[in-house]
Amino acid sequence: MEMKVSDIAALVGGAIAGDPSLPITGLNGLKEAQPGDLCFLRSIKYADLLAESRATAVLVKEIVDNCAATMIVVNDPDFAFAQVMMHYQQQQTHHPKGIHPTAVIGEHVTLGANVAIDAHVRIADHARIGDNCILYAGVYIGHHCTIGPDTLIYPNVTIREECQVGARCILHSNSCIGSDGFGYAPMGGQWMKIPQVGCVILEDDVEIGSNTSVDRATFGETRIGQGTKIDNLVQIGHNVQIGKHSAIAGSVGIAGSAVIGNRVRVGAQSGVAGHLTVGDDVTIAGRGGVTKSVEPGKFVSGFPARDHQEERRIKVSLPRVPELLRRVRQLERELEALKEG
Amino acid sequence: MEMKVSDIAALVGGAIAGDPSLPITGLNGLKEAQPGDLCFLRSIKYADLLAESRATAVLVKEIVDNCAATMIVVNDPDFAFAQVMMHYQQQQTHHPKGIHPTAVIGEHVTLGANVAIDAHVRIADHARIGDNCILYAGVYIGHHCTIGPDTLIYPNVTIREECQVGARCILHSNSCIGSDGFGYAPMGGQWMKIPQVGCVILEDDVEIGSNTSVDRATFGETRIGQGTKIDNLVQIGHNVQIGKHSAIAGSVGIAGSAVIGNRVRVGAQSGVAGHLTVGDDVTIAGRGGVTKSVEPGKFVSGFPARDHQEERRIKVSLPRVPELLRRVRQLERELEALKEG
Amino acid sequence: MEMKVSDIAALVGGAIAGDPSLPITGLNGLKEAQPGDLCFLRSIKYADLLAESRATAVLVKEIVDNCAATMIVVNDPDFAFAQVMMHYQQQQTHHPKGIHPTAVIGEHVTLGANVAIDAHVRIADHARIGDNCILYAGVYIGHHCTIGPDTLIYPNVTIREECQVGARCILHSNSCIGSDGFGYAPMGGQWMKIPQVGCVILEDDVEIGSNTSVDRATFGETRIGQGTKIDNLVQIGHNVQIGKHSAIAGSVGIAGSAVIGNRVRVGAQSGVAGHLTVGDDVTIAGRGGVTKSVEPGKFVSGFPARDHQEERRIKVSLPRVPELLRRVRQLERELEALKEG
Repeated sequence: MEMKVSDIAALVGGAIAGDPSLPITGLNGLKEAQPGDLCFLRSIKYADLLAESRATAVLVKEIVDNCAATMIVVNDPDFAFAQVMMHYQQQQTHHPKGIHPTAVIGEHVTLGANVAIDAHVRIADHARIGDNCILYAGVYIGHHCTIGPDTLIYPNVTIREECQVGARCILHSNSCIGSDGFGYAPMGGQWMKIPQVGCVILEDDVEIGSNTSVDRATFGETRIGQGTKIDNLVQIGHNVQIGKHSAIAGSVGIAGSAVIGNRVRVGAQSGVAGHLTVGDDVTIAGRGGVTKSVEPGKFVSGFPARDHQEERRIKVSLPRVPELLRRVRQLERELEALKEG
Repeated sequence: MEMKVSDIAALVGGAIAGDPSLPITGLNGLKEAQPGDLCFLRSIKYADLLAESRATAVLVKEIVDNCAATMIVVNDPDFAFAQVMMHYQQQQTHHPKGIHPTAVIGEHVTLGANVAIDAHVRIADHARIGDNCILYAGVYIGHHCTIGPDTLIYPNVTIREECQVGARCILHSNSCIGSDGFGYAPMGGQWMKIPQVGCVILEDDVEIGSNTSVDRATFGETRIGQGTKIDNLVQIGHNVQIGKHSAIAGSVGIAGSAVIGNRVRVGAQSGVAGHLTVGDDVTIAGRGGVTKSVEPGKFVSGFPARDHQEERRIKVSLPRVPELLRRVRQLERELEALKEG
Repeated sequence: MEMKVSDIAALVGGAIAGDPSLPITGLNGLKEAQPGDLCFLRSIKYADLLAESRATAVLVKEIVDNCAATMIVVNDPDFAFAQVMMHYQQQQTHHPKGIHPTAVIGEHVTLGANVAIDAHVRIADHARIGDNCILYAGVYIGHHCTIGPDTLIYPNVTIREECQVGARCILHSNSCIGSDGFGYAPMGGQWMKIPQVGCVILEDDVEIGSNTSVDRATFGETRIGQGTKIDNLVQIGHNVQIGKHSAIAGSVGIAGSAVIGNRVRVGAQSGVAGHLTVGDDVTIAGRGGVTKSVEPGKFVSGFPARDHQEERRIKVSLPRVPELLRRVRQLERELEALKEG
């Protein structure tokens, strides 16, 4: 990153209090900042940090006393910092370009305009890759897959046959879309595999974390709705339906045929049992284990997951059980004494 | 999928009540069905769904009133539907064929008859690949590995050196067989790596889910028994022994040297501590945390895992602890009053 | 493995009681041993196992009666066995050598002396690979990455752009270093992606398990300290800082911006919430869920994690809640009777 304070002020529309010619070489938090870094002050209540920070420049909402750094005054420091990050990312990002000669592209594959396909990519027959897609090295696209325009697929991602990925999706490294659902029928003490002939559909603007698995449907489709974001190491079972603009944190498991609504938030390490419905706008706190359907708008936690306030009341009471045992023993003794006395 | 109702009736040996010439283009559930879809009615108690279903045809055990769809009457609709799925899968599956010129095959490698090796596969020296094996793109097979006949390995799977995979196994994308066990000895405040010189043996008919890891033994072997099925994102530690025809659901962790019996079922997100024995025919409910060995045939749940009925009795009692605290306080007050009175 | 008892005695500096000419072909535990195997007796209290063991030779601290195997007497059988394992590993290991012609290496890449790069590796522009590094097949190294000397990277690992890996690190298959952190800002009912422009730094001697994800920082760095070992299927969020010589077992999740100290031990399937501090020398028992910062040296367990002794006391009391309910009911009845009587 090579910008001056004046460049940043121009980018975010801010007023400079200090030296506009100072070079900015990185972005950082106020505590971690080194000379050359740009920071931002989220709230005036953290203003004390400015006195000790080694940052070269800081985005602030108003002039602050005792600030060694050059200040850039903006309306919304948080947003302005995000603008600088976005600019920085555009500068630093060097996605692959063009179609690498080692990529192996099958028959009847349709490639959109301006597609980038890096080394050792494998695209099977009849796949369709939309305009401006970027496929990093080692990506596998199965036959008859459709990838929407402007989608970004990081190295070593596997998308199995017949799956559909929307526009502007991001798939992180080593994730797997369309592996077989875990379906077997018991037969004579053994497991007979139930064919998994459905597919996965990721709608537009979906993001899938690294090492995450989304299983194909037994039949029909597993669907992740528009704008839904899924973190790393998440397991999405066959025939799961997730609505739009939901967010699923790391290491979560959603069992087969569960239906998750729109704008649902699932905390890290949570689980949802199969064939349940989780309504719109539900929040599941981290480590929640959902064993029954959840009404829209509820905030649940615990295992089995229940209303969060109720769960909290129970959780704080449990450490008192040893004490309860003593008190009940004491009551029994005293009652015995009373009865005898 | 392009079949007519008459083709399906012939395939499953059913009698048609309706139009045999209707085209069937997909498989689906009764609720989700679109025109062109074939469904099945698992039980007569769901017959109401037939009136509203948009399905073109439905597999039924007996003629049902108020059914808009053409009916195909069979003895076991469930099984007949599985037959159609199997047929559909054989039709739609386009596995790679032949040996792709970009595959890199080491020295002294033995390839069976009719092996398919897709682009960018790497097979190290002295590996042996059985007849009819299919290796998708990006697969890595380490040196001295043995892969049994009819085994199917999806893209970007890694099988490390010296491991053995049986016949008819299925390994899903991005899984890893034979990574080092997590073994270190503390030495002067640091961790000294203990070499992991054992291997992994997957017996015949084993299935391994996507993004699942099976660690190699410190010495000796980590073994997954015949017919055992493992879901996605499962961690199998070094020297674990799993018996035959067991089933392990997603996001489970089995710690090092645990011994799991035959026909064991492990629910999603469960864990088994190291060096334990879980007997034959045990069921561990989802999220169970097994901290002691489990006798054969038991059904356990909870953390620490105990008899499921006992765990349920405890689980339903815990939400009453806040109430217990109030009642004990009340008892204490009343007893105090009695003593004073 | 092809050694004689005499070779092993020479390697570990032991005295032979038995036949020095016997061939040793494998390493194993006393119970699992087959003819040809070398074992070790960790403690004299397990001496009974020697009578039944089929092992050819055994490392012992002193001569044991009723031992069918040839004995090799050493000061520390445990350490001697590790020496043999190390020797065996050096013998059996066949890492790739040289630079494979199918590897695709970008512009301005610096390769150290004696680097091995296997088939289908992709190294992006401006990366620097240290002396003696070994990159297995299918590895992806992003642009401007730095890999320290003597580092070993197994197949299908992805290291995204701008990340730094230290000396003597080991990265297991299908792990992912530097995927985007899970950062979004809510905006009009949708999620706006916050650019993740930071990086990941793995210091020297770090080991990362298979299918593990370490996310890049939003800005600044995610850092794993020197000598820290991380097991399989672990999720490390953006901006996490982990100290030196810590050990993190399988299926753990560390949420964003958590700070973990030196020599911390995190048990399997544990979780640490974001923005917390876990002090030096803390132990988190398996399945612990840390929701508040933990002081140095503490041993915590449970969810929410608390002092281990306290947690145990609570845990053992909870199964008595059904009994407590009965006893309190009984007390209430008796008190009622007393008041009436």
